[in-house]
Amino acid sequence: MNHKYLDLAFKYAMKAYKSNEVPVGAVIVKDNKIIGWGYNQKEKNNCVLDHAEIIAIKKASKKINNWRLDGCDIYVTLDPCPMCASAIKQARIKNIYSALNNFDDKNSDLVRKLLKKDKTNPEVNIITNIEPLKSKKILNSFFAIKRDK
Amino acid sequence: MNHKYLDLAFKYAMKAYKSNEVPVGAVIVKDNKIIGWGYNQKEKNNCVLDHAEIIAIKKASKKINNWRLDGCDIYVTLDPCPMCASAIKQARIKNIYSALNNFDDKNSDLVRKLLKKDKTNPEVNIITNIEPLKSKKILNSFFAIKRDK
Repeated sequence: MNHKYLDLAFKYAMKAYKSNEVPVGAVIVKDNKIIGWGYNQKEKNNCVLDHAEIIAIKKASKKINNWRLDGCDIYVTLDPCPMCASAIKQARIKNIYSALNNFDDKNSDLVRKLLKKDKTNPEVNIITNIEPLKSKKILNSFFAIKRDK
Repeated sequence: MNHKYLDLAFKYAMKAYKSNEVPVGAVIVKDNKIIGWGYNQKEKNNCVLDHAEIIAIKKASKKINNWRLDGCDIYVTLDPCPMCASAIKQARIKNIYSALNNFDDKNSDLVRKLLKKDKTNPEVNIITNIEPLKSKKILNSFFAIKRDK
């Protein structure tokens, strides 16, 4: 865990914020090198798939020309949704470092179960609530503006 | 439920088979029109994201220029994995018609939970094991060849 990558994930989250997207950012690191990054672009691209983590995985796989992101870590500003958690696991990413535990408890519980070892993939470790106040501040500010509109 | 769309999903599964990919196909239908389709291309594209359902969702969202696939059905030759199930739900697809229940019981149970209503998305109905023998035959043949190699 290196805090500078989480800081970078926050920079990407702010790019989402400025583009009027739910502000979430992600950075993928292998051997201390950034191989993928992304921020939420669901509204711009009009596609539910374009979460920060999915975009980062796509970039990382392309970068190393391999769907197996063995030995990689992903830094995220918010715990992944089930779609992203399952993608992270199938990509064999080793660790998730997350700034904030997902507020939706039901999905949070599912995500924990999802990340466990199964028939085809090893377990993904998740270390969460590393920087909850910063992440909450950005998300709350975003949703407050949305509500006011 | 219209069986011709499941037949078409099987045709796409066979395209995956012939390209040496785990043979799974998907078709998305809205108002009796096909708006998306896909087959597994994970190995070719070197990316865990390129499951049949994800490719079909991407196509459908582009086709109707909307991430909300309200009122759509998805026909699949195998129950979705958690990544695809969560994407289907977030895209607000109404029904999943699946030829075969997933053999991995642990994920199958998780997928059922995933498809239930949550804070942001309505429940997705799943009707499965519509044509299990055909789907199993294709999958078993594929994995038998893989084992022999």
